[in-house]
Amino acid sequence: MSWNRVAVVGAGLIKFGELFDQSYEQMAAGAFQAAVASVDKGFDPKAVEAALVATQRGSLWGQEGIGGNTVPSAIGLSGIPCTRVENACPTGSDAFRIGAMMVASGVHDVVLVIGVEKMRDKSAQEGLLARAASGHPVYNRGETAPVLFAPFATRHMHEFGTTREMLAAVAVKNHHNGKLDPYAHFQNEITVEQVLAAPSVCQPLGLLDCCPQTDGAAAMILTTAARAGEFTDKPVYVAGFGVATDHPALHEKSTYVGLPATTLASGRAYAMAGIGPDALDMAEVHDCFTITEILDIEDLGFVEKGKGGQATLNGETALDGRLPVNPSGGLLAKGHPIGATGVAQLTECYWQLREEAGERQVAVRHGNALQHNVGGRGSGVSVVNILTRNR
Amino acid sequence: MSWNRVAVVGAGLIKFGELFDQSYEQMAAGAFQAAVASVDKGFDPKAVEAALVATQRGSLWGQEGIGGNTVPSAIGLSGIPCTRVENACPTGSDAFRIGAMMVASGVHDVVLVIGVEKMRDKSAQEGLLARAASGHPVYNRGETAPVLFAPFATRHMHEFGTTREMLAAVAVKNHHNGKLDPYAHFQNEITVEQVLAAPSVCQPLGLLDCCPQTDGAAAMILTTAARAGEFTDKPVYVAGFGVATDHPALHEKSTYVGLPATTLASGRAYAMAGIGPDALDMAEVHDCFTITEILDIEDLGFVEKGKGGQATLNGETALDGRLPVNPSGGLLAKGHPIGATGVAQLTECYWQLREEAGERQVAVRHGNALQHNVGGRGSGVSVVNILTRNR
Repeated sequence: MSWNRVAVVGAGLIKFGELFDQSYEQMAAGAFQAAVASVDKGFDPKAVEAALVATQRGSLWGQEGIGGNTVPSAIGLSGIPCTRVENACPTGSDAFRIGAMMVASGVHDVVLVIGVEKMRDKSAQEGLLARAASGHPVYNRGETAPVLFAPFATRHMHEFGTTREMLAAVAVKNHHNGKLDPYAHFQNEITVEQVLAAPSVCQPLGLLDCCPQTDGAAAMILTTAARAGEFTDKPVYVAGFGVATDHPALHEKSTYVGLPATTLASGRAYAMAGIGPDALDMAEVHDCFTITEILDIEDLGFVEKGKGGQATLNGETALDGRLPVNPSGGLLAKGHPIGATGVAQLTECYWQLREEAGERQVAVRHGNALQHNVGGRGSGVSVVNILTRNR
Repeated sequence: MSWNRVAVVGAGLIKFGELFDQSYEQMAAGAFQAAVASVDKGFDPKAVEAALVATQRGSLWGQEGIGGNTVPSAIGLSGIPCTRVENACPTGSDAFRIGAMMVASGVHDVVLVIGVEKMRDKSAQEGLLARAASGHPVYNRGETAPVLFAPFATRHMHEFGTTREMLAAVAVKNHHNGKLDPYAHFQNEITVEQVLAAPSVCQPLGLLDCCPQTDGAAAMILTTAARAGEFTDKPVYVAGFGVATDHPALHEKSTYVGLPATTLASGRAYAMAGIGPDALDMAEVHDCFTITEILDIEDLGFVEKGKGGQATLNGETALDGRLPVNPSGGLLAKGHPIGATGVAQLTECYWQLREEAGERQVAVRHGNALQHNVGGRGSGVSVVNILTRNR
């Protein structure tokens, strides 16, 4: 029943971190070269017929965001069609989805998706000031990301008895995984005690409950399922995807213990792929904060609503657990260069399904992997992609 | 030979201008309502399966540009997939192209494309300062749009004997057309003498050689050619499209008397549509400056390179000319709210092909219309769409 018209035949990224020594275009070129080098049977860059560049917020962080214009020249492909896609935190995952539809449309056979984001060239404070200066009557009144997510943690604790130790277990797990991922921003183990003792950011979230500000880039090469064999004998197919929006203002939210956009988006993706969460081998989900991963695994149907904290504490989402979540280290340890994030998560899924993930390889029983982002105003948009190695 | 898998069944816009009394979301909603109301057999907004929002630069002009997140709620469709597309000046036209591919992919049958841009809430000066502050080593050193286009006028004059009167003829024609367009920002005639006497902006371009800063929104409803009949007996089809990039820095340009991205993009669009410029009844092209329209009509193959100025002076591109160009008034008179511009141009093509353009209606002989944008760093990206009423 799966869609399976589009295949991934190459994927790569650059090491995430504070990349003050690389320009936006250099980062994009590095990811592109890694993706090209990854193609099993070799890949002539001239085979790229069109590209999408995923970058979320050029302007605020020192870029103008006209990546659709500057990236082709920087990767030696000036002339090709290239468009920037932006969709808040799901920017990269949405560009991937649109790239898949471009291939499926029959217009382009080989499409490149590059996610790239410069987060560190400008201070977060400058970004906040620019947002405050925009003068919106509702948004931007101290509405930082921790302020948006902390109330969900408080309410989840109140309704379901979720504890700070359960939140901390997410950070400890993802840092453990990140230590095994050579591309992760942070490659060190942390302990529950360290998470609990970290400086408070917005109650009940401390510093280690929050993902870092990270520079990074990732790239993937998509083609038709019919042509995949020209490039590799181990393609991974796009089984399905879903996007959903929700009301953007906090005062319009229908719940504070879940993110309905995730549930709606994943429902659409599962329907398109013809599978449910039981058929997944692993997932990369949006852990911008520890509470977010707990909400995600509930909203995606991996565990019952309210049980996400306990499931994490029990190790159900560990590398050797029932359903490994964020083997790459997630946003918490690998980093969250916004436009690159989704593409990098999908690259991790690609590697895992091809069983090339080294020390962090999970057991592949079903051949399916899920990738998820949620973000934007009031977490009002979510994107879910499902990949499969089954034809 | 044409592609023709996707049809336009509704299109509408709000009056362009200085819309201080409307929010970004209100403008989007106004355009959406106009598009819905335009559908001949009626349209239930719930039929929209997915949307694209075209907005170029939220952040610099007081919006954050997360339109993919805020627009669905504002138009009563919270929940639908919605993504922001950005591609410099061709932002709206590129969103249309991607919307067409989404329909052609078989994933979504009914796709909404909304272009919306707030240009006037922040001063252009603030935008320039923000760009200067971004600190790029090559860009942003006084690199305003007039500074980027003026050298092309100078060189075109030098090589081909193009005169300021020929440039002025573009502005006079487009203001004449704009007077007939109820949606245009400027609705007054101007004279050659006024253009020549206007204050200098960047030699040889004066104030009336430049398009204004305008707020605006436009929306179109796309569906499969197979389902078009449910909505109208007069659909207009997407015959072809093309996008091309060029090196973004001025010092990398191969010519100063043409914009190669336009030639490459239109060549792709003509090939896809299976027609050439001789089969067009009209065109909406990117006249951000008078010189730009002259470059465009040469680069698009309407006239021989170097003859664009004389052809305009001769009236070849007037409403009753050999090939009417910018019957809507163009960017010079109708305005250039960036994300909305391409969608509004395509709406004009839709109306012209349906012969609903009132006093500015052109003669429809072939049934084909072309829409064009060029922009970005060093005019390094161009998008061309070709519409047809022939099935």
